[in-house]
Amino acid sequence: MSPPSYGGVLAAAERIERHIHHTPVMRSHLLDEWAGAALFLKAENLQRVGAFKMRGAINAVLQLPEDVASRGVAAHSSGNHAQALALAARVRGIPAHIVMPAYAPAVKKAAVAGYGARIVECAPTQPARAAAVAAVIAETGAAEVHPYDNDHIVEGAGTAALELMRQAPGLAAVVAPVGGGGLLSGTSLAVHGSDPAVRVIGAEPQGADDAARSLRAGHPLPQDNPQTIADGLRTGLSQRTFAIIAAHAEQIVTVDEDEIVAAMRMVLTRTKLLVEPSAAVAVAAVRKLDLVGAAVGVILSGGNVDLDALPW
Amino acid sequence: MSPPSYGGVLAAAERIERHIHHTPVMRSHLLDEWAGAALFLKAENLQRVGAFKMRGAINAVLQLPEDVASRGVAAHSSGNHAQALALAARVRGIPAHIVMPAYAPAVKKAAVAGYGARIVECAPTQPARAAAVAAVIAETGAAEVHPYDNDHIVEGAGTAALELMRQAPGLAAVVAPVGGGGLLSGTSLAVHGSDPAVRVIGAEPQGADDAARSLRAGHPLPQDNPQTIADGLRTGLSQRTFAIIAAHAEQIVTVDEDEIVAAMRMVLTRTKLLVEPSAAVAVAAVRKLDLVGAAVGVILSGGNVDLDALPW
Repeated sequence: MSPPSYGGVLAAAERIERHIHHTPVMRSHLLDEWAGAALFLKAENLQRVGAFKMRGAINAVLQLPEDVASRGVAAHSSGNHAQALALAARVRGIPAHIVMPAYAPAVKKAAVAGYGARIVECAPTQPARAAAVAAVIAETGAAEVHPYDNDHIVEGAGTAALELMRQAPGLAAVVAPVGGGGLLSGTSLAVHGSDPAVRVIGAEPQGADDAARSLRAGHPLPQDNPQTIADGLRTGLSQRTFAIIAAHAEQIVTVDEDEIVAAMRMVLTRTKLLVEPSAAVAVAAVRKLDLVGAAVGVILSGGNVDLDALPW
Repeated sequence: MSPPSYGGVLAAAERIERHIHHTPVMRSHLLDEWAGAALFLKAENLQRVGAFKMRGAINAVLQLPEDVASRGVAAHSSGNHAQALALAARVRGIPAHIVMPAYAPAVKKAAVAGYGARIVECAPTQPARAAAVAAVIAETGAAEVHPYDNDHIVEGAGTAALELMRQAPGLAAVVAPVGGGGLLSGTSLAVHGSDPAVRVIGAEPQGADDAARSLRAGHPLPQDNPQTIADGLRTGLSQRTFAIIAAHAEQIVTVDEDEIVAAMRMVLTRTKLLVEPSAAVAVAAVRKLDLVGAAVGVILSGGNVDLDALPW
């Protein structure tokens, strides 16, 4: 098949139309004053499962051939992809097997189980995860749907920025957080395809800055030992997501943990919207850019937070 | 002048149109499951100043004759009315003098000051408040704008429910929290005027249940020594608000503190919306009613919460 493309994002938008929320774009003058730019917040925390991940998961699940789909889907995920794949599988009426590390937030495990998926726990190491996914696939014949190293996931993720570009014409830039790179690569395709003059900017925790280092190096570097509260951004780019981001993203801005928490609180105080630390990373990044007065789109990637473990 | 009326609510809606947000009505299937009814959440926590209070304050300030307005406005308020009156005065370009008790949440004091109002602190007793307001009025000639015992405040507050009735046709009931009764009396006028078949229900903390007791007694009873985290609902009805509520509200449901906190968390988890305990009281009340499957409007009255003092 062809690599992920703007045309693929357009096709994904049509395919998933009936299964996702068209999330609102929120504004706040007081938040704008704080951030130093006119923010257009794409509220994917109000998406089904509370995160943009539903877009990619349902796009991937809907494209499985019937005989493959009937055996179910499997993935490793410590977070929102787990919920999204569980719900996408339920929408199609097929089984989902989700491998989750023991440290995954309680609220996310409960949600995955609530969507009817089977949870397989594993040790929090890369070999343990891979072994657990392999075992599930061997046992069930399920199709693996990787959280970001998958063309359909990337194209589905890009539909959030596609909607944003239509909802908020005239943006100077769009900022999205980057972990494994599914959201930022999809955003890159959607924004560049809609209007090549609009800048695409990634936002990353300093304690998990593989994307910034990878862009400087010119090839994907691993993310070892990430240290950040932004649990959705602890993973590293794949070759696939790196290639798209390198082609279209202007820069990756890194922010420290205090900046992430401050942005999370400020969004909650000013817009009354609960966002995850991963989403706050993108808001924090805007404040560090010299975008005075510019109209800036921000993908608020998700809002699934354990209320008993707020970071302040 | 004539007493507060549905016609007054309609006129207020037109008067304040340019100065308020038309807040969205939010849905959540998972919250519906928890509440046992189909909830249509009127998100006044997304209103200017983070609460419905802006509606009444701007309605009252816009109706002051020019010579009165030029001397400014004054009020005692420990909460959202303070912010609302401060912003309404700024909109009209007149001074605001806000008497606040020392125990008012820091976030609310900072917001009032941020809108350019003068804050006059007082001891947290009824005589001290009254004396401080009287002194400010004697000194400045400002017009007092009471937080709820004021026809324009009541009619302005009713515009939230008026919008909701238009946004969500077919509601069986509308639930609003009740403290001093400005919101519930305005809601009563708006709902009854729009469709007399729709039930109007008040929601109140057990620890500040003067409205429930007053309706049973047939006359307003004082609220002494309120004990609730719902700081917006610690006040008692006035004769004015009691009369309207007694004429139109079907019942007052009381909820305990644990139910309030549970509802606040559930709204935040399921809708990603931050609401004050006072707003959560109305959601908690729905759960106690036997409204199985019915479409129920809920006025989420505000979202101003001190994030360093969350009640869990």
